[in-house]
Amino acid sequence: MQEDSDSVATSPFRSAQGRSEDRAVKRQALLTAAVQLFNEYGFHATSLDDVAARVGVTKPVVYHYLGNKDQVLFECVSTGLTLLREAAEAARAQPGTGLDRLKAFLRSYTEVVMGDFGRCVIRTGEETLSAERRAQFRASKREIDTAMRGMIEEAVADGSAEVDDVRLTAFTIAGALSWSARWYRDDIGPGAAATARDMVDILCAGLAPRP
Amino acid sequence: MQEDSDSVATSPFRSAQGRSEDRAVKRQALLTAAVQLFNEYGFHATSLDDVAARVGVTKPVVYHYLGNKDQVLFECVSTGLTLLREAAEAARAQPGTGLDRLKAFLRSYTEVVMGDFGRCVIRTGEETLSAERRAQFRASKREIDTAMRGMIEEAVADGSAEVDDVRLTAFTIAGALSWSARWYRDDIGPGAAATARDMVDILCAGLAPRP
Repeated sequence: MQEDSDSVATSPFRSAQGRSEDRAVKRQALLTAAVQLFNEYGFHATSLDDVAARVGVTKPVVYHYLGNKDQVLFECVSTGLTLLREAAEAARAQPGTGLDRLKAFLRSYTEVVMGDFGRCVIRTGEETLSAERRAQFRASKREIDTAMRGMIEEAVADGSAEVDDVRLTAFTIAGALSWSARWYRDDIGPGAAATARDMVDILCAGLAPRP
Repeated sequence: MQEDSDSVATSPFRSAQGRSEDRAVKRQALLTAAVQLFNEYGFHATSLDDVAARVGVTKPVVYHYLGNKDQVLFECVSTGLTLLREAAEAARAQPGTGLDRLKAFLRSYTEVVMGDFGRCVIRTGEETLSAERRAQFRASKREIDTAMRGMIEEAVADGSAEVDDVRLTAFTIAGALSWSARWYRDDIGPGAAATARDMVDILCAGLAPRP
């Protein structure tokens, strides 16, 4: 077969790696097209044909790389949740006070939810997922919530933050930042990093004048 | 005809009013069933048959009172937006500083989005609505945003609030409060009014310790 003799002619190991990389690149392109369409038009109004059309392939190609539409959505939200988990881990490793680490996490959290996959986490209602996947989705979101509460508690413990109700504060902050998935646009304003930084500063300073 | 002779036997005016009130009560019961189902299972997973079943009538009855599913959804979000607009008007009429009025609005805003119709405003993605209704939905939401920004500006003007970026502050606050439509449950915690008050206090105080 033509393919096999090609492989033998060069290094078969690199060829296998090359094929794997090529597959990963194609897969990522399809997943990015899907997540952008879900975010723009909603899950229900998007078909795998739409995803295929955006990348210039046919629906069976999408199906081959990503599976059915429910699987694609779940992979999109899982990718977003991984980014949020990584943001928490990176912030925990930072130097400074508890509030410094919390602020670092909140800024990264915001930048993630302003991006394609994080936005999909925020925009996807649990009711869109099957019962089993919904449980996984909830468990992963709970992990992020727990990380945020832990960092708030550490900031309170070292005196760098003043918070009465950690749970309600975490819900309030997470909402303020997550909402950017609904309104943030890359083409308006100073960009994701600066906007995220300013939002976190607003939450830290509060509205009332400082005495 | 039997109905006519009945009407003539009592006061025809009161009978007409009674029929109109009866119709309004039935209509409201159907609309409430619809909004609760949309909030719980999502618009796409809810049928008018489900709405009919919840109230113990048939689908044609729902259709007769409320119209098709798209009309029902639009009426649910319109009802929620009216409640938010009324909350802004009521807060504007309050005495005190600009921050007092802003806080009154933010508390009412939160209580509305924790309720059935406000929750539907928050949970409904624009992509679910037809192009024409989407424009109306956006315009109404913009009106609420403008009211919030106006109240922030008034609080800054009279020195009762310190805010650098009114637009970003309004987005940040609106997100923090709107998010409660996703997580708030009546059966956990101190109730909607107390939770709303505490969230607004968190946003006013900020996280950083007061010097």
